[in-house]
Amino acid sequence: MTSPVSSRLSPDGGAVIIIDQTLLPGEEKYLTLETAGEMYEAIYTLRVRGAPALGVFAGYAMAALCKKSGLSGKALTDFAAKTAEYLSSSRPTAVNLSRMAYRMAEKAKSLEALPAARAAEALRLEAEAIFTEDAETCRAIGENGLTLIKDGFTVMTYCNAGPLATSKYGTALSPLMLGLERGMHFRAYCFETRPLLQGARLTAWELYNAGAEVNVVCDNMAASLMSEGLIDAVFVGCDRVAKNGDAANKIGTHGLAIIAKRFGVPFYVFCPSTTVDLKCKTGRDIVIENRPGEEIGSLYFEKPVTPRGVGFYNPSFDVTPAELISAIVTEKGVFRYPYDMERILDK
Amino acid sequence: MTSPVSSRLSPDGGAVIIIDQTLLPGEEKYLTLETAGEMYEAIYTLRVRGAPALGVFAGYAMAALCKKSGLSGKALTDFAAKTAEYLSSSRPTAVNLSRMAYRMAEKAKSLEALPAARAAEALRLEAEAIFTEDAETCRAIGENGLTLIKDGFTVMTYCNAGPLATSKYGTALSPLMLGLERGMHFRAYCFETRPLLQGARLTAWELYNAGAEVNVVCDNMAASLMSEGLIDAVFVGCDRVAKNGDAANKIGTHGLAIIAKRFGVPFYVFCPSTTVDLKCKTGRDIVIENRPGEEIGSLYFEKPVTPRGVGFYNPSFDVTPAELISAIVTEKGVFRYPYDMERILDK
Repeated sequence: MTSPVSSRLSPDGGAVIIIDQTLLPGEEKYLTLETAGEMYEAIYTLRVRGAPALGVFAGYAMAALCKKSGLSGKALTDFAAKTAEYLSSSRPTAVNLSRMAYRMAEKAKSLEALPAARAAEALRLEAEAIFTEDAETCRAIGENGLTLIKDGFTVMTYCNAGPLATSKYGTALSPLMLGLERGMHFRAYCFETRPLLQGARLTAWELYNAGAEVNVVCDNMAASLMSEGLIDAVFVGCDRVAKNGDAANKIGTHGLAIIAKRFGVPFYVFCPSTTVDLKCKTGRDIVIENRPGEEIGSLYFEKPVTPRGVGFYNPSFDVTPAELISAIVTEKGVFRYPYDMERILDK
Repeated sequence: MTSPVSSRLSPDGGAVIIIDQTLLPGEEKYLTLETAGEMYEAIYTLRVRGAPALGVFAGYAMAALCKKSGLSGKALTDFAAKTAEYLSSSRPTAVNLSRMAYRMAEKAKSLEALPAARAAEALRLEAEAIFTEDAETCRAIGENGLTLIKDGFTVMTYCNAGPLATSKYGTALSPLMLGLERGMHFRAYCFETRPLLQGARLTAWELYNAGAEVNVVCDNMAASLMSEGLIDAVFVGCDRVAKNGDAANKIGTHGLAIIAKRFGVPFYVFCPSTTVDLKCKTGRDIVIENRPGEEIGSLYFEKPVTPRGVGFYNPSFDVTPAELISAIVTEKGVFRYPYDMERILDK
């Protein structure tokens, strides 16, 4: 099994190395990012993506930029705070990104008494801690998720919530990855996930390399598959969970949950508990990012597929109401509707 | 307003002029087809497509080829019969194509007593009659459909059931086309319709040229749009209707109907009554064609978007249960659930 790593520090600690996810599956190209601008661009253009992976990336990015700044004391604190703000602004919906960037900024503040080199080393360790915490979280999510399925199951997955989107194992893919490691067999239907095709390009690549039987389908084929009784469960990741269990995930998740409900197919949402945002009481409080229409009309295509003059509507996420979610699976356990995420976090 | 015409006779009546639908929307190229071989190729490669449009094309093709042959009497009858057989073999499943080709051959047979020039003129009139009959059917569908919407409505459309696929106006698009002609305003959300992108390529082009405000969206964005209350109605065409009102249409229609039901958005199916197939008691009797996986993984893309080794599942149609359809609209009227298509046909 190949377990790709989304991002890591360069050997000298002054840059971040990522696999350019926009080029997968055709090309496995690694990029070394040295400036905040390059890192912002990598997030914005989805070269690095996936909620936990963005948290891990934020840790490495902050560590690398702080080290390269050569600053210490109050100057480092100010630099780290500004950098965290700048990186966070690249994808406002990504809560892990800003949370980990600010965690690094807080850490920097706590290091004001140290000289630059020692502060930089402490920040490197903090970034590695973020990675390790996420890897452990993913494994625990996988163990919990494995209680929901059996050897031989057919699972539908949407978008990408695998190793590339996290540190290791993934969230939604973690049960499958762990199960495959242990010799179990799964058939997966990967939705291509328009417009950015993360399912076709990334999830299919991860699951196929991990040994699953993989079929790629268009996003509009869920009802067809479910009406034929071919699907045992739907596994999706999640970008933000409100206090009541409403869950924001890649555009299309909401519709998929509605269709699964109609056919009685269990619909499971997987996420680390850090994805819960108690400031959002319900999904209505979650801000949805709108992205450029070119992603629909021309990106990936040989030539533009839409006529000139037409408009687009390209929200990046939608919010699945809690009542449509059969269970939310975190590292803390498997939780069933109705959800009180505050109590779940206290576990 | 530009109302594109899928095919028409050349001024001298000896050739058929078509718009090459494979090049839309990037290029509006008209082809003059003079030989039976060129016409066969145009059907086979989908330069001309859409069930009613193929019937109209067959009429013009037969008229042009018979005129150019200069034949009359028994020789014309034989030539017409052979030509009908040859053209029909280009797409054996296209019922309208062979039905109208053989209608023209029958007409030729009835003209054996006439000299060549007069027979050719009678065949031209027969071809124009086929066009006019379809245009009248489409117009009646449009008039009936217009009773369901109001000026300023926002309508979602799926796949392509507009002028390009028929003679004029279309089926699902006919109410919008008629309304736009009369100075009404509509906003349309066109689903791109994976994998063949008929919505993005053709429907968006037709509606934009007709003066609608057009937005192209991915097939997975229905729940997002509907949950925000942006949609007044969904309009889809249909390839076959069973006796109980179950309707086969482009893959994805079924899921869209489920989502519309959840949000209480009216879901309307438009078709000529010739689309009803009483031999199918329910949707279970409708056979669904499976198509090659390359349509999902590589067609239209700059390079393949899926990793090597994965499988595909690519059904061309799905069946929407009658209970999810708010109304079926034909040239005979607007019919509401529960449906008894046999009684509707008798009207």
